[in-house]
Amino acid sequence: MKMLINVAETVVADALRGMAAAHPELTVDVERRVIVRRGAPYEGKVGLVSGGGSGHEPLHGGFVGRGMLDAACPGEVFTSPVPDQMVRAAAAVDSGAGVLFVVKNYTGDVLNFDMAAELAEDEGVQVAKVLVNDDVAVVDSLYTAGRRGTGATLFVEKLAGAAADAGAPLDRVAAVARRVNESSRSFGVALSAVTTPAKGTPTFDLPAGELELGIGIHGEPGRERRAMMTSGEIADVVVDAVVEDLRPDGPVIVLVNGMGATPLLELYGFNAEVHRALTERKVPVARTLVGNYVTSLDMAGCSVTICQVDEELLGLWDAPVSTPALRWGC
Amino acid sequence: MKMLINVAETVVADALRGMAAAHPELTVDVERRVIVRRGAPYEGKVGLVSGGGSGHEPLHGGFVGRGMLDAACPGEVFTSPVPDQMVRAAAAVDSGAGVLFVVKNYTGDVLNFDMAAELAEDEGVQVAKVLVNDDVAVVDSLYTAGRRGTGATLFVEKLAGAAADAGAPLDRVAAVARRVNESSRSFGVALSAVTTPAKGTPTFDLPAGELELGIGIHGEPGRERRAMMTSGEIADVVVDAVVEDLRPDGPVIVLVNGMGATPLLELYGFNAEVHRALTERKVPVARTLVGNYVTSLDMAGCSVTICQVDEELLGLWDAPVSTPALRWGC
Repeated sequence: MKMLINVAETVVADALRGMAAAHPELTVDVERRVIVRRGAPYEGKVGLVSGGGSGHEPLHGGFVGRGMLDAACPGEVFTSPVPDQMVRAAAAVDSGAGVLFVVKNYTGDVLNFDMAAELAEDEGVQVAKVLVNDDVAVVDSLYTAGRRGTGATLFVEKLAGAAADAGAPLDRVAAVARRVNESSRSFGVALSAVTTPAKGTPTFDLPAGELELGIGIHGEPGRERRAMMTSGEIADVVVDAVVEDLRPDGPVIVLVNGMGATPLLELYGFNAEVHRALTERKVPVARTLVGNYVTSLDMAGCSVTICQVDEELLGLWDAPVSTPALRWGC
Repeated sequence: MKMLINVAETVVADALRGMAAAHPELTVDVERRVIVRRGAPYEGKVGLVSGGGSGHEPLHGGFVGRGMLDAACPGEVFTSPVPDQMVRAAAAVDSGAGVLFVVKNYTGDVLNFDMAAELAEDEGVQVAKVLVNDDVAVVDSLYTAGRRGTGATLFVEKLAGAAADAGAPLDRVAAVARRVNESSRSFGVALSAVTTPAKGTPTFDLPAGELELGIGIHGEPGRERRAMMTSGEIADVVVDAVVEDLRPDGPVIVLVNGMGATPLLELYGFNAEVHRALTERKVPVARTLVGNYVTSLDMAGCSVTICQVDEELLGLWDAPVSTPALRWGC
């Protein structure tokens, strides 16, 4: 598999150098692997920190900025960052108002953020944590006890980030984050396998003419393989999975997310079918985001995340955000 | 090749339905294939219209909004839109201040925009045109006499759009657009071939272990094939090509563009090498944009566009823009 890289060993460091060059509004510590919003800590503001394995860009580094994350900790590709990164990030963004760790539910991330929270608290930083576990596809998975954390991470980071930007205290920001996670569900579909730089060949085998329903963002197995389906058929399966699990009784925000290698032309066409499927199931859509946001390197495919919102959450969604990958209102 | 589509025949219409569903700030005429900024025409403002074959998303529909295009006309995949679309778009966005057509240099686009300009002028719309021909790879090409129009289209649409947003008259907006094109150069590299929905198999053959230097955004042949290179080696070839042709004597804006299927992690790493290569050639970088903006469906690869800027052009770049794919300052 051909890649636009130097060598596998420097992929993450190279990307961080490139982020530093492109984004003077971020402070990127390439060696220690921490991306911090320039100007942090902001007086009186709760700091938001997230992180996880690399390979899901723009998550998380692309979401650092006003109204979203204050810092991100990228691990090696598909590998948890280490506690030292998270402790440094917490120290860099804590103004005294405390720090929220946004943690996707993968065993390594959970353990390392837990340890980092203890270490940061020893250093006098008040830490709250929210676990994101929105993926309805499977109960347990490779790397995960319980449901995996996927697309809802974007919603948690955006809405809790807006609450923090508006001056909410730590317990309130954490409560918003937990409510967003509880109100969100995701389901993903792979049309092709993913290839990591270290391995250089596809990490699983997906035959021509088949797709995998319920795939994880590291290529973890899903619910089942089927013969290739149309965009409309896929939308029905995906929307059924998230709607039947969440059973929303009000409007939702929908994220129609590309896994990395699916053209935007196809994602927009898929969005039309997702809207059709939601409308048929009497789920009103308040806002829609279409694009590659929570990716799996070069995997072709898509995921859908819905988040039920009330007026408060919708206001937090519409609030100003200014990050490399998500930006509006400022 | 698996695709997230219904059938090849409805790919463009499906995508337009999906854009309409996602972007209430746009008026999308799915049947007639015109995307218009809601609220257009804006009193006294020059209208900007572009268009071209689909398959390069977010170009052009994703660039409709404040500070960029007023309307876009998507053709079938890799096929020019027809004059009727452009005439409708011009009529929809003309406030009486006239309309600028931004035309990428492909034979079909040039002929159809020429015809549309005549028809629109017959209907009383004052039309100016700018031809974008920034790709230094080859002199003539499949579909093109002269240089192809690629990444500089984003710069032309952004900077001329900002001039129009600031109230400049048609001749001034057109002059900005021409100056941006004259100040811009691009060069692209393919790591994989592109597959169109209609064909369903790769449109050309690129063996494992080889890349193609100077590729076009429809997979048109480039300068040469070579054995796979590192990101740093590719950056040297690409930056040499654009710098030797433009010979900038001042700062540039650089677009590090993905062709569609190259992960953002790799694009950022490549950006680090592009910055290194520009610095070594004593070309100062004023601004950087990294992402998938002028794509070729599922092609893996990248392109680099540089645009030399003075204070005026840099101010136009920094001016507010609010479109689905490019947004800042508002």
